[in-house]
Amino acid sequence: MDAHLSTLARLKDRLGPHGWTEDPDLIAPHLIEWRDRWSGHAPILLMPSTTEEAQAIIGLCHEAGVAVTTQGGNTGLVGAQIPLGEVLISTKRLNLIRAIDPVDDALVAEAGVVLTQVQDAARQIGKRFPLSLASEGSATIGGLISTNAGGVHVRRHGMMRAQILGLEAVLANGSLYEGLSALRKDNTGYDLKHLFIGAEGTLGLVTAATLKLVAQPRHTTVALLALDTPEQAVALLHRLEEETAAVAAFEVMNHLGVSLAVKNIPNVRIPFGTIPAWMALVEFEGPNADLVDQVEQALASALEAGLAQDAVVAQNETQSKSFWYLREEMSACQKPEGVAAKHDVSVPVSKIPVFLRQADAEADRVAPGARVVAFGHCSDGNIHYDVIQPQDMSGDAYMALVPQMNEAIHDVAMSFNGSISAEHGIGISRRDEFLRREPPAHLALMRAIKASFDPKNIMNPRVLL
Amino acid sequence: MDAHLSTLARLKDRLGPHGWTEDPDLIAPHLIEWRDRWSGHAPILLMPSTTEEAQAIIGLCHEAGVAVTTQGGNTGLVGAQIPLGEVLISTKRLNLIRAIDPVDDALVAEAGVVLTQVQDAARQIGKRFPLSLASEGSATIGGLISTNAGGVHVRRHGMMRAQILGLEAVLANGSLYEGLSALRKDNTGYDLKHLFIGAEGTLGLVTAATLKLVAQPRHTTVALLALDTPEQAVALLHRLEEETAAVAAFEVMNHLGVSLAVKNIPNVRIPFGTIPAWMALVEFEGPNADLVDQVEQALASALEAGLAQDAVVAQNETQSKSFWYLREEMSACQKPEGVAAKHDVSVPVSKIPVFLRQADAEADRVAPGARVVAFGHCSDGNIHYDVIQPQDMSGDAYMALVPQMNEAIHDVAMSFNGSISAEHGIGISRRDEFLRREPPAHLALMRAIKASFDPKNIMNPRVLL
Repeated sequence: MDAHLSTLARLKDRLGPHGWTEDPDLIAPHLIEWRDRWSGHAPILLMPSTTEEAQAIIGLCHEAGVAVTTQGGNTGLVGAQIPLGEVLISTKRLNLIRAIDPVDDALVAEAGVVLTQVQDAARQIGKRFPLSLASEGSATIGGLISTNAGGVHVRRHGMMRAQILGLEAVLANGSLYEGLSALRKDNTGYDLKHLFIGAEGTLGLVTAATLKLVAQPRHTTVALLALDTPEQAVALLHRLEEETAAVAAFEVMNHLGVSLAVKNIPNVRIPFGTIPAWMALVEFEGPNADLVDQVEQALASALEAGLAQDAVVAQNETQSKSFWYLREEMSACQKPEGVAAKHDVSVPVSKIPVFLRQADAEADRVAPGARVVAFGHCSDGNIHYDVIQPQDMSGDAYMALVPQMNEAIHDVAMSFNGSISAEHGIGISRRDEFLRREPPAHLALMRAIKASFDPKNIMNPRVLL
Repeated sequence: MDAHLSTLARLKDRLGPHGWTEDPDLIAPHLIEWRDRWSGHAPILLMPSTTEEAQAIIGLCHEAGVAVTTQGGNTGLVGAQIPLGEVLISTKRLNLIRAIDPVDDALVAEAGVVLTQVQDAARQIGKRFPLSLASEGSATIGGLISTNAGGVHVRRHGMMRAQILGLEAVLANGSLYEGLSALRKDNTGYDLKHLFIGAEGTLGLVTAATLKLVAQPRHTTVALLALDTPEQAVALLHRLEEETAAVAAFEVMNHLGVSLAVKNIPNVRIPFGTIPAWMALVEFEGPNADLVDQVEQALASALEAGLAQDAVVAQNETQSKSFWYLREEMSACQKPEGVAAKHDVSVPVSKIPVFLRQADAEADRVAPGARVVAFGHCSDGNIHYDVIQPQDMSGDAYMALVPQMNEAIHDVAMSFNGSISAEHGIGISRRDEFLRREPPAHLALMRAIKASFDPKNIMNPRVLL
């Protein structure tokens, strides 16, 4: 106890009065997951404002053998950021954009910088940071790196991993991995940055990164399409990409998802007379002024080829936004319908249709009458497959079936060599299942890496491994 | 000795008569680096034809504590593939394309498949594998992965790393890392494949990989530009990318490089009256039939803005090839001029002009009258900076200066946070310098990883670390 108190005293002393709090009211927002799925507790909240401060406090924790939980914007979906008694380190004061260079197409941001701030900074110099996802107004660069975030532009621009030129991370013993490179090519040894990306904070605290910028698209346009089947979606994706080379996002939504959005979310409209079996939202970006003509031509020929039943191209920015609004509400629209078992799976793109058929059958087997909202990033094989309680079943009764439902849906994904977590990560919530399903040889390699980076197991010790 | 003999006997027995040779004539081509810079020796050449055979022989070597050197197409530039007494394992019989899927845009190739075979297989299903480099007729998939090869299409398509969806590798103890995923998104634990990519065979033998295919470009065109300065090259790159979004390659060559190509290589011609200070070769690819019009417009406006002195767009395939021929001979054209100190450096793109100025001064300081051929992948900041002996100096005298020259040029690159090996790797030839220049904290992490993957240090033990 004394040792622990003296560690806390040293941590406070190192950070100064603005760098920490023990005030329960101030800590509280950091202890609750935003969907209210998890809540935690922490003896203290530390807020380093420089890399040196982060090194110092992690070094002190290491010395004392005190475990830490690290937190960015607290938008994670797998519970990794919620402490259960550990010292909580927030990156909120590591909030500088250290540099931005239009010739190198590079921006150096500290871990606590919010994604929209990076997008804005890039825009101000006529460039673009292409990562985009629903929580971009809160999610931070450090968290996005540690979870290798995905979002809607992965097909064209890649996940967060693909946006990173270099990074800086505080290791478990307080030393620094100094990898803030702006190089496009560097074959000198193992590329260590890739270990920190997606490691969910278990190998060190990412404190800053050099992010890759791209040219702003000169022209963009969005189309909504009515489809009969997922097979059409897959064929359409390839057709449109070949004809336009301009597909930036290709999202799908099933009938129930769209129906619930129309029913439960204010101001959601669809531009078709009836709600189709499937809808695709396709965003295009390109340099040519005739992009809209090109897209309209490609859509017309796709309709003629029977790859879609109907198509509407947004006529203006407002309509584009309304198309995206429909897509973005696919999660929220489920809430009034009761308990949902949610899955963030991926399969090879060609397997999406058969995955959906088999998963539907499994969902109905586990809970007859269960209602499936399937939507997401068709172009990456990443389907958010959410199974809502049957209308004639109580929430509690369905809740008891959720583990079985998860198991069944994940079994289907794995039967196609898929993933049980395409973009959300493992964290706490998928940990048991991950440890059970991952090949032992892979786990052994991961554990060896973890042990050599963090021998005292103080970095997010309940997460992932 | 007995133990060693019995290990050799067991290895032969496991592979059968077609799987090994001790015939010096048959081994000889595997012992000589293609530029004649290194030669080695090996007691035996093993040629496993399946992953299981590779596992078995590496397992046997591990058990006996016998070191191995692994070799693909023997096109490496840093000596890593040349054995010095180790058991030599060639991947030449791991030469199957196991699968190809036009919907998943994925191809599974074994390690010994040659790059052009992959390019051809992709083309046959209307797709494309975009990695392209001079040695593509010999270089193998396994070697390209283990060296994270670059080439001329990195700006648009990324290095080899970016083409890999998943891979399979035999670990030092003979067990298998089974990561042949075709998934685009998978956030389940550390992304181990990135450790094997660029590890130069020190963490395991890559036996197969799932490669990402892309759509074939509908239209391509190539332009040659005459420039006064490297500053123009950097500005031009950004201008053309913004105006066309179609830049697939952007290569530069300095005056001496072009002069030597014209002088020393048969049939090299340039489409300008005099050899300019710098030339840029720009390849464009895009979906629109009007690509050539677009490119011509963009070039006209760049000329008008003073970003180039002259520009020629290839009128046909033959002319395109002749433009590329000039670029591809930048290395060979130096040979008749004597000894060259070669450097594969990268710096942030914005630093290319100042790097070149300072490096030129350093080259002249170390060897007054030394002649610089600078060329390469301007769009990635990767310059091949070759310093040829002064005309009034003997080859031997210059050879003695080469270490000092390397040091001086690399110092300049490092002063801009650059890399001493942008795409060739470390291998044997850059090892001492790498170990001296790399931050000790990075080396410690790399060594910890190496020790946990290969505790007996049997995989390419003289390479990299």
